[in-house]
Amino acid sequence: MKYELFYWPGLQGRGEFVRLAFEEAGVPYVDIALVPGEGGGADAIMRVLDDPKLARPPFAPPWLRVGKQLISQTANILLYLGPRLGLAPPDAAGRTWAHQLQLTIADFVDEAHDTHHPVGSSLYYEEQKREARRATHFFLKDRVPKFLGYFEHVIERNRGRGPWMIGSSITYVDLSMAQVVAGLRYAFPKAMRGEMRKYPRLARLHRAVLARPRIRKYVKSGRQVPFNTTGIFRHYPELDRPVR
Amino acid sequence: MKYELFYWPGLQGRGEFVRLAFEEAGVPYVDIALVPGEGGGADAIMRVLDDPKLARPPFAPPWLRVGKQLISQTANILLYLGPRLGLAPPDAAGRTWAHQLQLTIADFVDEAHDTHHPVGSSLYYEEQKREARRATHFFLKDRVPKFLGYFEHVIERNRGRGPWMIGSSITYVDLSMAQVVAGLRYAFPKAMRGEMRKYPRLARLHRAVLARPRIRKYVKSGRQVPFNTTGIFRHYPELDRPVR
Repeated sequence: MKYELFYWPGLQGRGEFVRLAFEEAGVPYVDIALVPGEGGGADAIMRVLDDPKLARPPFAPPWLRVGKQLISQTANILLYLGPRLGLAPPDAAGRTWAHQLQLTIADFVDEAHDTHHPVGSSLYYEEQKREARRATHFFLKDRVPKFLGYFEHVIERNRGRGPWMIGSSITYVDLSMAQVVAGLRYAFPKAMRGEMRKYPRLARLHRAVLARPRIRKYVKSGRQVPFNTTGIFRHYPELDRPVR
Repeated sequence: MKYELFYWPGLQGRGEFVRLAFEEAGVPYVDIALVPGEGGGADAIMRVLDDPKLARPPFAPPWLRVGKQLISQTANILLYLGPRLGLAPPDAAGRTWAHQLQLTIADFVDEAHDTHHPVGSSLYYEEQKREARRATHFFLKDRVPKFLGYFEHVIERNRGRGPWMIGSSITYVDLSMAQVVAGLRYAFPKAMRGEMRKYPRLARLHRAVLARPRIRKYVKSGRQVPFNTTGIFRHYPELDRPVR
């Protein structure tokens, strides 16, 4: 089966949650962002978005092309890929739980994005800096502790062995969770320095994901785009303040 | 199988998307919001949220209790219920497509919510009115046309008969889509009056859902909470302006 991932070039964004699953599984995939010429990059994405004849058009990247099927929405892509990549629990209830956690991560990711775009995604950050400062204050003070406290508790309640969120084996949810921790640390280094001490299990999960041989290889490969200020997690020094 | 829906009393909120599926299917369910005494209402929800021993705790309502399993996240609940209520496509690719649409609806619903809470959900609307006015302007001008234009196109591309989004039978996605149209019309009557003329297929879908015998019965039952300013869709006259 040939897997093709469509996502904008030049940023990690939501595509990275899918890339990490392929990389950890060691399953080959075509990253359209890295394909040169007309068959790749933003052109390839726009060609699909502008195609008026697609029976089941995606709303926005990322999407996965598998044969003729296009699968969009990050959590939906991972729901589909999880069992196929060996990164989902074996039982139906476990898979529903994994998807539930992934959707909660997606909610948190949306809120992290909205810190720099509280007024609207059709405006630049520079056009909503004032509102972004206020939104980020409450995100760091109220939402980060609520979400991270919840995820820490999920790991604590997991009866499996190891640092993972579900059972005793790594799943795509762990990869996404580690990506969120990494993103928060990049965007808010001052705020997260003290904050992460409250979540030792999440910190351990993050280290465990980074220590996976295939993830290490991916990070060193030069293929991973560094975090930058076009993605979901953005470092704007004026927004990063220690949480009181 | 006994189905119990846990959601806050007094508002439609995200619980309504699940209620509409049960109502259309004619499948009995316990709406915990309507159960009097300690076993129901907000108390019953808080008891679950405050239970430190749950192996798989939900982050927030709504959730569904089926036996010992708790299933949370609105789209995840509908993914689970869809086939069981006869409200999902029969094939795997169709179910993935339905879920993808539901997640896109969920994104739109989040943005509709954020019009009155752009700074943060831990503050009251009154504490972020200024930002809400600016956010709503761009929501109505840029996001409503983008999302509704997309959903209109999905109906147009559907090769099935009838007014539906997928195939020739109603699915849970149609119920949710109609709920969003209803919510937008309640929240922004001035803005939506002209805007909805651009989306005749969505308007038809909305009418078709309201004409379903069991949905009519539900709307007239007195059990459906009216839209109000504690839900996702809120009517604040100062935010509702015709779209230019």
